[in-house]
Amino acid sequence: MGEMTHRMLAAAAAALALPTAAVAQVPAAAPVTIDPAVAKARDAALEGDTLAWEIVEELTTEVGPRLAGTEKEAQARAWAVRKLKALGFSNVRVDSFEVQVWVRGEERGEIVTPFAQPLVLTALGNSGATPPEGLTAPVVFFPTIANLQAAPAGSLRGKIAFVSHAMTRTQDGSSYGAYGTARRIGPAVAAEKGAVAVLIRSIGTDSHRMPHTGGTNFPTGMTPIPAAALSIPDAEQLERVLQRGKPVSVKLLLTPRQTGLRSSGNVIAEVPGRDPSAGTIVIGGHLDSWDLATGAIDDGAGVAITTAAAKRIMSMGRPRRTIRVVWFGSEEIGLFGGNHYALTHKGERHATVSESDFGAGRIWQFRTTLPAAAKPVLERLTVALAPLGVPLSTATANGGPDGGPLARTGVAAIDLQQDGTDYFDLHHTPDDTLDKIDKGALRQNVAAWTAMLGVVANAPETIGAADPIR
Amino acid sequence: MGEMTHRMLAAAAAALALPTAAVAQVPAAAPVTIDPAVAKARDAALEGDTLAWEIVEELTTEVGPRLAGTEKEAQARAWAVRKLKALGFSNVRVDSFEVQVWVRGEERGEIVTPFAQPLVLTALGNSGATPPEGLTAPVVFFPTIANLQAAPAGSLRGKIAFVSHAMTRTQDGSSYGAYGTARRIGPAVAAEKGAVAVLIRSIGTDSHRMPHTGGTNFPTGMTPIPAAALSIPDAEQLERVLQRGKPVSVKLLLTPRQTGLRSSGNVIAEVPGRDPSAGTIVIGGHLDSWDLATGAIDDGAGVAITTAAAKRIMSMGRPRRTIRVVWFGSEEIGLFGGNHYALTHKGERHATVSESDFGAGRIWQFRTTLPAAAKPVLERLTVALAPLGVPLSTATANGGPDGGPLARTGVAAIDLQQDGTDYFDLHHTPDDTLDKIDKGALRQNVAAWTAMLGVVANAPETIGAADPIR
Repeated sequence: MGEMTHRMLAAAAAALALPTAAVAQVPAAAPVTIDPAVAKARDAALEGDTLAWEIVEELTTEVGPRLAGTEKEAQARAWAVRKLKALGFSNVRVDSFEVQVWVRGEERGEIVTPFAQPLVLTALGNSGATPPEGLTAPVVFFPTIANLQAAPAGSLRGKIAFVSHAMTRTQDGSSYGAYGTARRIGPAVAAEKGAVAVLIRSIGTDSHRMPHTGGTNFPTGMTPIPAAALSIPDAEQLERVLQRGKPVSVKLLLTPRQTGLRSSGNVIAEVPGRDPSAGTIVIGGHLDSWDLATGAIDDGAGVAITTAAAKRIMSMGRPRRTIRVVWFGSEEIGLFGGNHYALTHKGERHATVSESDFGAGRIWQFRTTLPAAAKPVLERLTVALAPLGVPLSTATANGGPDGGPLARTGVAAIDLQQDGTDYFDLHHTPDDTLDKIDKGALRQNVAAWTAMLGVVANAPETIGAADPIR
Repeated sequence: MGEMTHRMLAAAAAALALPTAAVAQVPAAAPVTIDPAVAKARDAALEGDTLAWEIVEELTTEVGPRLAGTEKEAQARAWAVRKLKALGFSNVRVDSFEVQVWVRGEERGEIVTPFAQPLVLTALGNSGATPPEGLTAPVVFFPTIANLQAAPAGSLRGKIAFVSHAMTRTQDGSSYGAYGTARRIGPAVAAEKGAVAVLIRSIGTDSHRMPHTGGTNFPTGMTPIPAAALSIPDAEQLERVLQRGKPVSVKLLLTPRQTGLRSSGNVIAEVPGRDPSAGTIVIGGHLDSWDLATGAIDDGAGVAITTAAAKRIMSMGRPRRTIRVVWFGSEEIGLFGGNHYALTHKGERHATVSESDFGAGRIWQFRTTLPAAAKPVLERLTVALAPLGVPLSTATANGGPDGGPLARTGVAAIDLQQDGTDYFDLHHTPDDTLDKIDKGALRQNVAAWTAMLGVVANAPETIGAADPIR
């Protein structure tokens, strides 16, 4: 109940037209207060943080696109190590690992018949290549992935499968799970039924000629077929052409290739704590981006926000708990950095894990799997985040894409959830660039992360294993 | 003053806190009324016109991009003739002429040093080509075209000139005149000072990685240099990179070419009038588009709106004046269709000329050069357009890009002005597609054009030569 008083309860009861007694029977809790220094650090971030902008501006300008496992991601790591050291973080290092690297080539598409015209598309990660001269085939339309799954075996032999779908704009991004299926498994399903290539409507909510890339997967032993996402206006155009009822053929030229094993890694930096037994707080975002853009919102913003907040806590003096900032590598191509971290740091005592990887929109709610024994921490978190308009959600936290593997080992997760209403307008497109970040929203993010770290890093309570049932 | 009554004047005076007498001294004018059939046709269009959508949907879907002088523009003409005949128009024909045709090739750009990364750009019409392996050169930055013009002779030898600029969003599109200069003459100015290539910030108001193409011109005898527009985020990125103060080099690959003289033409269709001496009303838009998109707002919407309105007047019975619908050819590459029309129809008696070529946004005001003797026509126009929220502007009409040459021969122009606040977000980009058209706004356009045609086509007054001073 936080700082709610009897007088507030009476007012609430009046507003709800209930007898005061019906609400006031709740016993009055002791007021929850937070360290004034934390409130001050939070408010200072909200008012004037410039470090998050500096980080994302430098990363996107001086490195630019940084596809996992490529020389560009290596450049990003080198830049990151320099930057984190310059900011005064301790134990700055790279945890290296290897990944299979797929790189984009030429990509072109066009309707050949009945109405010749170009199509804007982009290859999906792990797409196969067409012959160097391209591939022309008739198109078979599936309104949803379910329709494709229902197609008879062998029925797509020699054909290009085109999978469309709607996609709903949601604040919490939950629609990505369902609609993303068309991209994640559509190509393999089409290949299994004999298709020579597959086109999907981009997994996105915009109406620009910006195709959304993203990874797809083919089971071991299956030869990948060429797989591309049409921009949403192009998918709608192809649907209109198909609706005319004439046979439609499309020509595709895609020349991506697998380049084999390459080096990737997580960049790690710390604000050392006073009490190793209290457990480490893991925060971060991912350093790699898709190759089509500079990855400002996915996920330059995430590494910038979390690092700027950690720096604010660092400047307040040594916290009880170590704050470990992880800039994960190779997220986009399969969560390699997050899995590597969880595997290689398994035996360590972790208190909490949190990731920022959903753009740069304002934080609108938070959720946790803090155990019941850490209830006072949750109460103080609630009080610390309230002035930013960030209430506790009833949903369960998952630690984000890269924090997820660690969270699934039982480490309590705290998710500061960003408003993703517009996120899938930009996600994985050439349009994910610095100009899309609102400085005010970025500062609100840093403020929320500062408040969270301020509360959790110095909490005297023990923060034990996660308890998803609260 | 239209239908304003003494009671309304009193109310207006009260609202302005003036004594009623101060306003009511204006003598009461005879009420201006319009033919109820025109009001009915206007309101029917507003309520339920579907023809304009049908035209722009079919043109953009079944023809797609239709660059002037190419086979695609020829396909558009063939489609147009079929469509206009099917709609019942008379004297459907093509007035042919020839144009020099420039076609786009490969186009790629990248920052080579100090921060290697790709740039999204597109060649400007009439751009020269780079060598087939591309061209790498240092970049010299000019914040505005004025700075480029002030550069010393020869100072750009071996350099790529990069011209940036701000561009203000305006409702009437007036900012295009000033800011468009960077595109129209920037490349020639840079070439004259020795530049090996030129990059401009796109002439646009969006923040998407959508470069805006458009024509540029090199004086006779000057060898065109490669000239491209960066998307606005890419222009801002290049500025940020330049601000670091290190030498910046860019690699360009552009392989456009001039293909020589090709056939183009204006498609003409008529609603024949009863009284040839009353003069023809010319309306229309342009049929050609840039090659990057399907030209939905530039200018599929224009031919669709004007034709749908003419069809509504046709269905009301034979008007006094002939309405001539012209779907101009080769507008984008130099107003060839409009100039050809004015030249070849010079001796004919024209009453008015109007074009729709500013997107598909709502009409928000109108302006004319109707002569003083046709004041009753202007008064009825004002009354007919008022219910659509379209008042008379104090500015002078120009007849639009294709109607302009005819207007400049002395034919009265009536411009129904569309709200172009968002127009330069899409103008000449790959994003000019059907999904950008709002059906409600399109119907409001057809309603306004129906009202205008209904008033002008049957006006009993003589409509003589234009009088820009009203």
